[in-house]
Amino acid sequence: MLQEDNIIALATAPGIGAIAVIRISGPQAISIISKKFTPIGKKKLEECKSHTIHLGHIVDDNTTLDKVLVSIFKGPNSYTGENVAEISCHGSPYIQQQIIQLFLRNDCRMATPGEFTLRAFLNGKMDLSQAEAVADLIASDSAASHQVAMQQMRGGFGHEIQNLREELLNFASLIELELDFSGEDVEFADRAQFKELLTKITDVLERLIDSFALGNVIKNGIPVAIVGEPNVGKSTLLNALLNEERAIVSSIAGTTRDTVEDQISIEGVNFRFIDTAGLRETTDHVEKIGIAKSYEKIEQAALILNLTDATKDNQEEIKGLGRKYPDKKIVVVANKIDKVTEAKYTQLKKQNENTVFISAKQHEGIAQLKKILVDLTFAGELGKNDTVITNNRHYDSLLKALGSIQKVKESIQEELASDLMAIDIREALLHLGEITGSVTTDDLLGNIFSNFCIGK
Amino acid sequence: MLQEDNIIALATAPGIGAIAVIRISGPQAISIISKKFTPIGKKKLEECKSHTIHLGHIVDDNTTLDKVLVSIFKGPNSYTGENVAEISCHGSPYIQQQIIQLFLRNDCRMATPGEFTLRAFLNGKMDLSQAEAVADLIASDSAASHQVAMQQMRGGFGHEIQNLREELLNFASLIELELDFSGEDVEFADRAQFKELLTKITDVLERLIDSFALGNVIKNGIPVAIVGEPNVGKSTLLNALLNEERAIVSSIAGTTRDTVEDQISIEGVNFRFIDTAGLRETTDHVEKIGIAKSYEKIEQAALILNLTDATKDNQEEIKGLGRKYPDKKIVVVANKIDKVTEAKYTQLKKQNENTVFISAKQHEGIAQLKKILVDLTFAGELGKNDTVITNNRHYDSLLKALGSIQKVKESIQEELASDLMAIDIREALLHLGEITGSVTTDDLLGNIFSNFCIGK
Repeated sequence: MLQEDNIIALATAPGIGAIAVIRISGPQAISIISKKFTPIGKKKLEECKSHTIHLGHIVDDNTTLDKVLVSIFKGPNSYTGENVAEISCHGSPYIQQQIIQLFLRNDCRMATPGEFTLRAFLNGKMDLSQAEAVADLIASDSAASHQVAMQQMRGGFGHEIQNLREELLNFASLIELELDFSGEDVEFADRAQFKELLTKITDVLERLIDSFALGNVIKNGIPVAIVGEPNVGKSTLLNALLNEERAIVSSIAGTTRDTVEDQISIEGVNFRFIDTAGLRETTDHVEKIGIAKSYEKIEQAALILNLTDATKDNQEEIKGLGRKYPDKKIVVVANKIDKVTEAKYTQLKKQNENTVFISAKQHEGIAQLKKILVDLTFAGELGKNDTVITNNRHYDSLLKALGSIQKVKESIQEELASDLMAIDIREALLHLGEITGSVTTDDLLGNIFSNFCIGK
Repeated sequence: MLQEDNIIALATAPGIGAIAVIRISGPQAISIISKKFTPIGKKKLEECKSHTIHLGHIVDDNTTLDKVLVSIFKGPNSYTGENVAEISCHGSPYIQQQIIQLFLRNDCRMATPGEFTLRAFLNGKMDLSQAEAVADLIASDSAASHQVAMQQMRGGFGHEIQNLREELLNFASLIELELDFSGEDVEFADRAQFKELLTKITDVLERLIDSFALGNVIKNGIPVAIVGEPNVGKSTLLNALLNEERAIVSSIAGTTRDTVEDQISIEGVNFRFIDTAGLRETTDHVEKIGIAKSYEKIEQAALILNLTDATKDNQEEIKGLGRKYPDKKIVVVANKIDKVTEAKYTQLKKQNENTVFISAKQHEGIAQLKKILVDLTFAGELGKNDTVITNNRHYDSLLKALGSIQKVKESIQEELASDLMAIDIREALLHLGEITGSVTTDDLLGNIFSNFCIGK
């Protein structure tokens, strides 16, 4: 499986940093660098042990490009399973480029997106679902998405699927054997045991398929619509939520600031806030169109915060939301409690037991609101050892595998001929194999790895 | 000199990459990581040799933050001279932040800008001019600026200054000794030898000071004004120059695109183009003000390209530029030669021997123009082994040191008393010491390192 050529790419984020890391993988990775590397010690790189670091200069003809550290990893004990060398150079984009160009002229070619991880997969260092988890891990931006990706990378459900697939494969070969003796009405595969396995597979597949709803929310954030009349304090509330959570992030220099403005992470769960404006009952035709659009947006939400103004005599709660959206969780939140008297506050609390009272401006009640948001979603659902599916491709293959398995079960039930069953078993094996990469096509691999960044 | 606390920072560029490197330096750097690191091999990090790399997981309580490689460097054989550990983690900003926060809670503090390099300086791993070269190297964006920074980092002129300073120090102590015997009219310091040393120092200082003009140009680019009437093709020319040079850069993925639009590097030399508009003789009052402003801009240029339109009968060369700017190099460039007949072209070439003929649109004559630009500036001046000063601080100290040395020379010439001479020698020693950092103040160090990025 080992590739014959040597690939190179910048492995760290582009731009200026203190240092940058350039990675080369391939059979000649170490000797290619060695030819352009003048070590400060005595040994040549080829003579050094794996997992060691060497100080020296990258020299092109007589020009010293940089003083660098070279780390060497000898295959198969490397990320890709091939020989790998990493050059840690000064983080000037000019220097990064010069070093990459030097090696592009000297037996390396530019790596395609995800090609290092593709090689790791091809060389058996990880299965396909683990390879995909690497990309998810790099893209993870909350404790939950990070945890799910981390677990998948460590092989969690890939191994489970792989084991079930191997058990199924055993039965498949017995069933195929029956086909060779089709005239003789023999049953090599024990139907009772086989049904037991199919039930086990069905259970696992259904559990994983069910987890996708949660996985999707973890990966993309829980959509929350804040609704309410103008001036009830929707923006102030959002800022209050944002400010507290952002403060932690921004105390670390070098943290990227390019986050979506209305997405925040509370207790490790991403919430994505959907802006809606001007929900009220009206007879005005134009305003009605606007309100219809707001309702369309609310459709995307899993959770609705119905914000009201505690200072108003008449609580402007949006009526009929519960009737309109029976599946969505709705929380009524009364804002501006800093503006009402103690007596009025006590009265309001009595009259509206399920309302959450806050002052977005004074940051009162925000912590309680956050706790409610988290509780209402899936607190507890995300146990540390639960396997969660977040990938559309996996979801699709699991659904297809489940469909095939169910057909196999029906065939057994109806005592249909082995040849029909064999087709469905093959289908199930194919779809289970797609998940771990036991079965792949160039198209499939191309699709998966083209979404990676270059250098991984 | 060793610091007692442990500092941490992201060492690679911020943002998403395949990997990111987090660096910790300090006496407990290795043991701090070890407490949160579960190696995949058997050995604890503390038991491992310097310059080795270890695969494992960063674990906070029972949560696995990431699968990482940890590189360890034992002081004094490290960048800072202290114990250093580098964590190579997956390049998600979320993960970077989580790992940094974990160690901020566990005996590390955030590094200030340049603090790793400051520690390297304080621990004698490099002199001050070398430390400054690290920042220049990271900021270098052309072959010339890169080469100058690289040479300075390797200790080129720092060592030279240091050696001269030590020779001067010997004489200084002899002269100071003479002061103790001031009544007895003795001369411990051989005046002839001393004069010889002073001449040697003067030569070196003058050479370095002279190199600053070149160094400045290397660091900041050579300012070139393109002047000419409207529609002679100034922008097309600039684009023609830019396009060719940019093509190389943009073929490398991950190269930053945030370059100044009108700065290009030709044969490794940066040229900075200054936009001027509408230079022509006029009697209109308002237009005259605009033209005066253009002339102010031309003042900043070292080189003027006077662009004309070859299709016009009357060559609209801007008159009087040579008289107005006797110090600036002026090149007359006739554009649009693709629009004139062969006969006309031949005639023009005959009449204007020093004019460069081009077609910016058709990219004709661009390579020749580039060659002329480079030749006119300092081709050959930048020999590979020449020392070039690029730093204002060094320039300032060199000038002051030269002033003091000259006073000392005068004192010897006029056979003045040793005590006067001693003051000037001390001054010279101070200024030479400022360059290499033999003499520093907290303010000076603060100024220098605050310009570094965090993580270096």
